[in-house]
Amino acid sequence: VSRTIRLTIAYDGTEFAGWQRQADGVRTVQATLEDALRPFEGARVVLTGAGRTDSGVHAAGQVASATLERCSLAAPALQRALNATLPGDVRVVALGEAPAGFNAQFDARGKTYRYWLLAGGVASPQIRRSVWHLPQMLDIAAMNGAASTLVGTHDFAAFRAAGGDVVTTVRTVTVSRVDESTHAFSVFDNDDLRDVTDRRAGLRLCYEVTGSGFLRHMVRNIVGTLVDIGRGRRAVEDMADVLASRDRGRASATAPPHGLTLWSVRY
Amino acid sequence: VSRTIRLTIAYDGTEFAGWQRQADGVRTVQATLEDALRPFEGARVVLTGAGRTDSGVHAAGQVASATLERCSLAAPALQRALNATLPGDVRVVALGEAPAGFNAQFDARGKTYRYWLLAGGVASPQIRRSVWHLPQMLDIAAMNGAASTLVGTHDFAAFRAAGGDVVTTVRTVTVSRVDESTHAFSVFDNDDLRDVTDRRAGLRLCYEVTGSGFLRHMVRNIVGTLVDIGRGRRAVEDMADVLASRDRGRASATAPPHGLTLWSVRY
Repeated sequence: VSRTIRLTIAYDGTEFAGWQRQADGVRTVQATLEDALRPFEGARVVLTGAGRTDSGVHAAGQVASATLERCSLAAPALQRALNATLPGDVRVVALGEAPAGFNAQFDARGKTYRYWLLAGGVASPQIRRSVWHLPQMLDIAAMNGAASTLVGTHDFAAFRAAGGDVVTTVRTVTVSRVDESTHAFSVFDNDDLRDVTDRRAGLRLCYEVTGSGFLRHMVRNIVGTLVDIGRGRRAVEDMADVLASRDRGRASATAPPHGLTLWSVRY
Repeated sequence: VSRTIRLTIAYDGTEFAGWQRQADGVRTVQATLEDALRPFEGARVVLTGAGRTDSGVHAAGQVASATLERCSLAAPALQRALNATLPGDVRVVALGEAPAGFNAQFDARGKTYRYWLLAGGVASPQIRRSVWHLPQMLDIAAMNGAASTLVGTHDFAAFRAAGGDVVTTVRTVTVSRVDESTHAFSVFDNDDLRDVTDRRAGLRLCYEVTGSGFLRHMVRNIVGTLVDIGRGRRAVEDMADVLASRDRGRASATAPPHGLTLWSVRY
């Protein structure tokens, strides 16, 4: 009997060449999961992911769907079995039955990404894979002012990847803001040591963006521009000008992938 | 002019064979730091660490001292220069001048270790290097009852490493408790996803222990025994019996190193 399953997936993207299955020998999240599912189905399983994260980008709540024809394991048992065989840098955090025809890509109504930044201070070794550390302080108010101008339905062509080829570059963004992170970035951010030296501290920032969909590199190109504004290299008003120009050459350099996480997908 | 410096050091112990310098070719934290200091002094520098952490054990606030004869860089510049050359899994989080004769090992008045545990749920990929994940739930009240019996001055011979050879196994413990961690273990512990399935959640625990000094493997042997009590395999009263026995054979198996962090050193 055919069934459709929905998986919620977390991964540390550091040692993956992104989500999408590629030529043989390249380690991707999709290929790793499909290979792990195969013995339970007795045939190749095709996973459809909500978003194709790039090499080095992480996920806390990536969602994928698959149709199974033969696997009769109940969802909780299949989740346990998958996590027992998967490498430690990818976990199935939830697995359930979905309505027939559910497609994690086409049925997605919105996605949220988070990008973590540490401004100044010393980055603890445990966050080096997931936070972009900048040596200088950043002006959070300026960054937030610029980030807010992106909310709405706009042509985001200025923030697409060079050479990108999509039907339309119009997207709707409902949340775009920079906040100081009230929580430590990891259990190793030892606030007990903050007295020792103020060089340790640094400013912990999180850029959160929610939208109907995202162009390739769009979030990282936005973050690159926000950071230049936070450093004082560009004016707050530049963000609106870059957006209106629809010219990729006007945005700042692409921020590195390791600060970015696909946080959640809404259906 | 001779000067003494004090370094506060954080590291991800995963890819180090512990703190202490060993035979050539083995990657240790002490050797990595001494090698990084060498060009600034123009000669070999000998670092004295407050505690010798084992292979795989982390530090948030390890402290080390060194005497420099020739390096004239001011402390903040030396800290920046070291962090620019050190690999990302070790950071100098503070560096300052210390009184002549300061010795990070002999002058230490107390140390605090933390050991992180996740009971049940699914461990996010980002905490796999720093949290011991146990599939089953743990009885936190039972563990805490057992942990509290260790406070005081006792002979901890039952919790020493097999084959350990020390003058005295008497130590004073001032804090020994198990708490539910109110903070997420990492930014990737996505509480937004907790609704999806309660299998995701798990119980986040932290064992904190502060004492005048610790025998080799002492904290990990205590944690191994606490976990058996939390699982219901042993009674709460066993902890006092094991302690009183002074017999290494009575304690449970040593907990894995990756959950353990040298949190801070008091002077």
